[in-house]
Amino acid sequence: METQSKMIEITKTKNSRINEVDFDNLSFGKVCSDHMMICDYKDGKWGTPQVLPYGPMPMEPSSKVFHYGQAVFEGMKAFKDEDGKVWLFRPEQNFNRINISAKRLAIPEFPKEYFFEALETILKLDKDWIKPGKGNSLYIRPFVIGTENGVSASPSSEYRFIIICCPAKAYYSSPVKVTIAQQYSRSADGGVGFAKAAGNYAAQFYPTNLAKEKGYQQVIWTDANTHEYLEECGTMNVFFRVGDKLLTAPTNDRILDGITRKSIIALAEDDGVEVEVRRVAVKEIVEAAKNGELKEVFGAGTAATIVPFLGFDFNEEYYELPKVENSYGSKFKTKLQDIQYNMAEDKFDWRYEVKVD
Amino acid sequence: METQSKMIEITKTKNSRINEVDFDNLSFGKVCSDHMMICDYKDGKWGTPQVLPYGPMPMEPSSKVFHYGQAVFEGMKAFKDEDGKVWLFRPEQNFNRINISAKRLAIPEFPKEYFFEALETILKLDKDWIKPGKGNSLYIRPFVIGTENGVSASPSSEYRFIIICCPAKAYYSSPVKVTIAQQYSRSADGGVGFAKAAGNYAAQFYPTNLAKEKGYQQVIWTDANTHEYLEECGTMNVFFRVGDKLLTAPTNDRILDGITRKSIIALAEDDGVEVEVRRVAVKEIVEAAKNGELKEVFGAGTAATIVPFLGFDFNEEYYELPKVENSYGSKFKTKLQDIQYNMAEDKFDWRYEVKVD
Repeated sequence: METQSKMIEITKTKNSRINEVDFDNLSFGKVCSDHMMICDYKDGKWGTPQVLPYGPMPMEPSSKVFHYGQAVFEGMKAFKDEDGKVWLFRPEQNFNRINISAKRLAIPEFPKEYFFEALETILKLDKDWIKPGKGNSLYIRPFVIGTENGVSASPSSEYRFIIICCPAKAYYSSPVKVTIAQQYSRSADGGVGFAKAAGNYAAQFYPTNLAKEKGYQQVIWTDANTHEYLEECGTMNVFFRVGDKLLTAPTNDRILDGITRKSIIALAEDDGVEVEVRRVAVKEIVEAAKNGELKEVFGAGTAATIVPFLGFDFNEEYYELPKVENSYGSKFKTKLQDIQYNMAEDKFDWRYEVKVD
Repeated sequence: METQSKMIEITKTKNSRINEVDFDNLSFGKVCSDHMMICDYKDGKWGTPQVLPYGPMPMEPSSKVFHYGQAVFEGMKAFKDEDGKVWLFRPEQNFNRINISAKRLAIPEFPKEYFFEALETILKLDKDWIKPGKGNSLYIRPFVIGTENGVSASPSSEYRFIIICCPAKAYYSSPVKVTIAQQYSRSADGGVGFAKAAGNYAAQFYPTNLAKEKGYQQVIWTDANTHEYLEECGTMNVFFRVGDKLLTAPTNDRILDGITRKSIIALAEDDGVEVEVRRVAVKEIVEAAKNGELKEVFGAGTAATIVPFLGFDFNEEYYELPKVENSYGSKFKTKLQDIQYNMAEDKFDWRYEVKVD
């Protein structure tokens, strides 16, 4: 196995944990693979990236990330095809987005060559953690945290960029029921909703718990000003199929520019499906549900891929979605996964092979 | 020195760092005192609090706080009077507020007796870190972080409550210039702006950096919907003196219920000053600045106490504030500090003595 790298310091694990893992019963994000990458920013520059055995790192309690939430992340997946080749899906998009998130959180941008070299180094070392077969993947979590010690509310002068990997099966094991937000909100105009900022997620937990108590696994967030327009959902963008058209909200400073979202739009348009990227009113969707025009609602994100919604709650009323033949959700999930697992032509040039041998 | 506690496990440092510290030249929040408290939540309950030497703690890279920002904090100060007695200021307010913040971030509430016992234990051990004299204090930072390992976006099942302390002088060494937000925003209706949630602070760093490039140290945030009303500023609430009246925004789900803020309102009313707690329009303050009615603007917070603003920028125009005699900012800062340092009658029952001998 070739694990040399010009720009990265590599320390291989002496004790792989791979045989302790039950790959048929994985809880999402719970087990990490053998190796991780860390790279520290200090004195105005990023140091040498290090790939080393996954394990705890000492952190001072005064480290800024604990106090001021200066942290952004990405979610990616590595897929293995039947020939043992390893593929990423549009990784450049993740690289660009983590730096867009970083900029909004006043975090210095990470160098592109480090990002890709680190990914390839880890995936070579941990290639056996990637299992073939649709639904199996190695979930990759790049993230950056402010690590300067000191409790004053100003940007950190030091950062750590980390990449960890977790073998994964499906994020949701079954279709989900959701509720439409009428009181709580996820993000403000002029805020950080478009960034994969750590604080955006914690802010959703309490309202999502309230939804869970009523039997809904997720909340579809609406605009904070009026709660009249549907935005995104938990860790996913949302699509509505009304008649034969697909509707989804445009990205803006409140909504994440999802890579699965934009891939579905491209696949749908390529398939001759009319896609309307525009504000989607709650009223319109409730109306469409009532008159039978609403055929499907599904969430789309890297971790979850495409998740069909069983139904949604609005104003204490539950709208069950019909069972449709020729589901767009199923169709585009298949098309997407066929590309991801190297089982179909890659006409959009989305696949990125990682040479692991 | 009595350091026994019924409910807390205590490990004293063998190597105090106090002699290495230059107490005349402190950078806010940079140096921590000898001891800290940690208390872990697991299996649905808080364990035994431990007071132990301040130092790094091992954290797994998959720890939820790094990814989803589940973290809230408080800021308090311990003051020493000329007799060596140690005082906290309205600590029950901080205790209540950290649990209000925790609830919104889906973090379990911390027991009151642990909070106070831990504070008293640390302050006894580290009493020499509290220097007498107005302006000197020991800044106390209680905080809670989600510590479960696992990168899935759901509330942590494990938490660590930590208290660290930093000897402090003034947060701002001189008056500040501020700019009024017209594009970026701090929080949404239905969001977490009222909580001392870590993510609220990181979200301010980038727009604050843009302000700094223009010569303004802080941003006065406005409502995200219209940018027409003045809300809070960095780590402070804001007061406007128009004529002889004092104006400040009401607390709501976007604005922190500041303890210094409510103390100033009480002191002002007690002093016969008319205080209007109501929405304060940008237009009104700009108008008052133009016609000479705007006498003072100041920020109020635990770390900063009361900080006079030199002037503010709005729409690329700078409004310098006049130099006033009988400044409300100075007067209420003196009254506040006189209570905090046990130099004046405590008619509101705000002081809380910590027995350190």
